[in-house]
Formats: sequence, C-alpha cells, structure tokens
Amino acid sequence: MKALVLNHPGSITLQDVRAPEPNGDCRIRVRMAGICGTDLELLEGYAGFRGIPGHEFVGVVETASSPDDTPWVGRRVVGEINIGCGRCEWCAAGVKEHCLNRTVVGIRGRGGAFADLLCLPAANLHEVPGSMDDETAVFVEPTAAACRILEQVAIDDRTHVAVLGDGRMGLLVAQVIRTVTPDVTLFGRHAHKLEIARALGLTAPPTDAPVPGTARFDVVVDATGRAEGMRRALELVRPRGTLVMKSTFHGEATMASWPVVVNEVTLVGSRCGPFRRAIQLLESGAVSVRPLVSRVAALHEYESAFADARVAVKVLFDLGR
Amino acid sequence: MKALVLNHPGSITLQDVRAPEPNGDCRIRVRMAGICGTDLELLEGYAGFRGIPGHEFVGVVETASSPDDTPWVGRRVVGEINIGCGRCEWCAAGVKEHCLNRTVVGIRGRGGAFADLLCLPAANLHEVPGSMDDETAVFVEPTAAACRILEQVAIDDRTHVAVLGDGRMGLLVAQVIRTVTPDVTLFGRHAHKLEIARALGLTAPPTDAPVPGTARFDVVVDATGRAEGMRRALELVRPRGTLVMKSTFHGEATMASWPVVVNEVTLVGSRCGPFRRAIQLLESGAVSVRPLVSRVAALHEYESAFADARVAVKVLFDLGR
Repeated sequence: MKALVLNHPGSITLQDVRAPEPNGDCRIRVRMAGICGTDLELLEGYAGFRGIPGHEFVGVVETASSPDDTPWVGRRVVGEINIGCGRCEWCAAGVKEHCLNRTVVGIRGRGGAFADLLCLPAANLHEVPGSMDDETAVFVEPTAAACRILEQVAIDDRTHVAVLGDGRMGLLVAQVIRTVTPDVTLFGRHAHKLEIARALGLTAPPTDAPVPGTARFDVVVDATGRAEGMRRALELVRPRGTLVMKSTFHGEATMASWPVVVNEVTLVGSRCGPFRRAIQLLESGAVSVRPLVSRVAALHEYESAFADARVAVKVLFDLGR
Repeated sequence: MKALVLNHPGSITLQDVRAPEPNGDCRIRVRMAGICGTDLELLEGYAGFRGIPGHEFVGVVETASSPDDTPWVGRRVVGEINIGCGRCEWCAAGVKEHCLNRTVVGIRGRGGAFADLLCLPAANLHEVPGSMDDETAVFVEPTAAACRILEQVAIDDRTHVAVLGDGRMGLLVAQVIRTVTPDVTLFGRHAHKLEIARALGLTAPPTDAPVPGTARFDVVVDATGRAEGMRRALELVRPRGTLVMKSTFHGEATMASWPVVVNEVTLVGSRCGPFRRAIQLLESGAVSVRPLVSRVAALHEYESAFADARVAVKVLFDLGR
C-alpha cells in the first residue's frame, strides 16, 4: 500500500509498504485523513515517533478479525486513537487514554492514517452517520479533543471564556464552548483565519484591536501551539480562573510561575475526548467544519500539503485521489 | 521605632523610622516575626517591594482607631495579610486575597512585621489562644497557607500525596495533609531537615534513596521554592493527577509543557489560607512547629539571621530582645 513514512525528524516520504497486520483488529481502508498540529510537531521530532503518522481519519472497515466484529465490515467509521494494554489499572477503569503501555494511532507505536490502510480494535470504532460527509467526519477526532474541555472544566452560560489561537484547534474549541456559553472570544494573529471565525459567528477581534482589560476571563484555552500562548493566557485569566492547555509542542516553555501561585490559577492539561459528543455536535451543525478546510490534497502531494498545513487552517488528504 | 527596611534589591538595613499611622487600623506591637521564603525572594527583587518586609507575626494590639475595635486592645493576635479596597467585586465576595487594589503586609504597598509596630484592620485579626506560645503563633500564617491546599484539592484518606521540599513550607504542608491522609511522603535534599521530618513522624526517604516509581502520586505539592521543583513534581504525579504550586520565586521557570497536556495533569496555584483552621491544627498539636525553629534572633542580628534563613528551617525575630 501507499503510505507517508516518517523516518527521522524533518524527513517524510511516500513509500510502498506492506499493509499492516490486523492482529485481532479491524482493517480499515482510509478515505480521508487530516493533518493536525501534532503531525507537524512529530515532523519536528516531538514524541520521537517513527512510522506512518496521521490520527484524524474516516474510512471503511474492510476486514474484521473475529466473528463478533464482522458486523463492522463495510461500515464507514472514525476511530478513537488510544489503544490500551487491557490489563493495567487504567484499562480496568476504562481510561485507555492513560494506559502507560498504550499505543496511539500515528503517534506512538502504531501506524497511522496517512496510508491506504490502518488497523484498529473494533472497540475504538464509531460509525459515521449517513448524513455526514467525509470532509466533516475527518474532524470528529479533533472535535472530540475540543469537547474534552467540557468534561474537565465547569463552564455554564455565564462563564466568560477566551480561546487563544485561530488555527484548526482554536476554531473547534471556540465553537464547542459556544454550545454552553455565548461569551466566547477568539484571539488570533491571522486576519484570514479570524475572518473564518467571524463567518462562523464567533466573536473574534481583529489582530490590531486594543488588548482587553487584564484578567477578565474565567476560563482561557491556549490552543496556539506555541510557548508564548501560555504567557498570554496567564495575562488574560482572572484570579482563581482556569487555563486549559491544549497545545502539545516540542521543546520547552519558559514562563514566570509566580503569577500562577499569586493569582491561584488552575492549569488543566487536556487531550483526547468523547467521540459520541463530537459526532452529535458535528451532525447537528452546532460545530461547523467545512469552512475550515483549506485544501484537499492527494497523498503524493504531501510536500506542498505539509507546507500549506503550516499556514492554512486545515489540509486534508483524500486517499481516493 | 526600629525596623528593617528594604531599599533596593539585596539591601536591607536596620533603621529608626516613624511609627506607621493607623489610618483606621489597629496598631500592633510585634512580639515575634518569622522569616519566610518570600522574604528572601523579596530581597532578590521579587514583586519589586520597597519598605519593611515581614508578614508572619504575633503581637499585641496597642491602639484601635474606632470604638468598635477597642475590645481588641491588649489582645495577643495574629493577622491575615491581605487588605482589600473594600469596593471591588472580589472584596464584595469576601475574597480580599485577590482584590486587584489590595495591599499585603510586608509584600505590597504596606509595611510589615520586621519592626516594633505594624498596622492592620481589625477585620484581619485573630486572637491567639492563651495556651499557644509566641513561637507557635508566629507559624499561624504559613500554616494557614498550607491549609489552603485542603480547600482547593480533594484529598481523602486514600489519596497518595508527595510533598517536594524539606524547608519550612514543605514541613508544614506535609503535616497539614497528614491530618486527612496517612499516605504522605516528603522528599528533600537536606539530611538535617529530613531528620526533623522523621522526628515529626513523617515519611521522608533519605536523599540517596532510590527514586520512587514514576507517576505514582495522586497529588504532588511543590514547596521547593525553586524552578526545578516543578519539573520533578511533573515526573512524580500520575496521569490526571494534581500538582499544587506553593513556590513563589523570582524569575522564570523553564519546563516542557507537553507532559501536562499528554498526562492531563491539573496544576493548582495556591497562596494564602484559612487562619481559623491553622490555629486549630496548631493548638491541637496536629501540626507541630517548635522543632522547625532553628534560631530566634534579635532584630539587630538581621544580617546573620537572613544568612541562616537561607539554609536553616525557620529563623524567627524576637522583637523584645
């Protein structure tokens, strides 16, 4: 099969490789896959990953390994990306996201979606509603990650929220949070992305707007993907407020930690989230993702696709092209 | 009156200064004051403070400004250190600790306890029980800061807790947390301080003990007062665990933030706490502080006292000497 393979930091190539062995999993023919900020970080060396990246996808189940799983064959699916060992206390508690021995699709010890085929346990699969197109379904995984915030932080219709970062994650987070409070402001640095935000009905001041009064927001989500985002978020969050950390980036961040202590800020690391809620929000239209798609590329166009993904909102691969 | 005055970073001198004007507050004759890590940081330039430092004290009310407050005259007291503006939303909510216009005894816009006299609103005062000696009462403020953790983080008798730092704050925090869970381990780098911890009945492995298995603790409190403490704490806290930040230090900390995100750690900044609970814990003996007193110095011995405070557990000033 065709696949993009990351061999060492900075080097990704299109190769003919052997199809992955199911080993008890379902084998899925990928229809579409999204390039995520984490993929760009993997390319820079984050997490030391080697192999086929890609963890946002929609595909069709081609084979099942056990009779129990055969009903999945032929269904169009998206997939949760963490696969637990099934034996540790985290797996016993149903939290495979934190299994110490987990593999993660396209991120840790398991090939990903920038390929014709990938394997995943049936337990990780969610069927895509018939009314949802592939371009939308490929956003289920990152939308679920945005929904994770609502599981972690108490937000209601009187909560003042700021989202930092006008990229793909910021635009999803702001829309997800808007489903529970109308008071969401998105701050970004790119005029064309802020235009998209406003077209989505989000409050997104222009880049040259005056800085808002300090310490106004109950909750600030850093989705900038950059170390500076944390510092800016700390300026905007009110005393005893909550700063949600959504950025995984390679390398270290430098910041003064005393404002966290003096202002008794709570920082919450936030990663993968609930697929079911994400599917509902996308299906209902509460979260709209089509305006986020900057380009749909074929796999062999990966060089320009990755280059575009660094500046565009969202670049997708169409594996059928 | 005699007072230690911080004129610029690194320079503190004993001076004869005018007694502070009450301006509606009670005036208190200081009996004893403690040197805190924050005082050492103020000396390094933290918070840009100029004036008389010192915020841990016990004293006797000498004058009151209003008839309502005259019952305080002659009483032995300790005092909450934050004074709100009385007009903002924080003050209206009873949280003067976060009033944006607050003054803080010996830290921000208000003279402190390294002096014969200081002024404080009656609303900030707590009477010291007759059974409690001055050496214990001077620990009410830092013990209250340790108790703040119990207001912020859910800890019960099955919670595994690590405290990093064998200084004054670490030894108080470990004792306070021990009142709710038996599973508290104190990690430090100083053999003589760890001896004190063990004499207090705390679990405190020797400095050369093997590093505990990674990611074991539900809650890790960083009371090291150093940037490295955060990094170490992140190694010890389990996924979805809580890291309490108790250190205010000058300058910046550098750390990789992605483990916070990937492991979904919650970081909680923690500052001032409830005096009533602290007085109860000290009065009952649940928190024992006399073994923490390394030296009691006269104010004119300030140079050696500050030098000692950098290496000893706790150095107190006796204003009566």
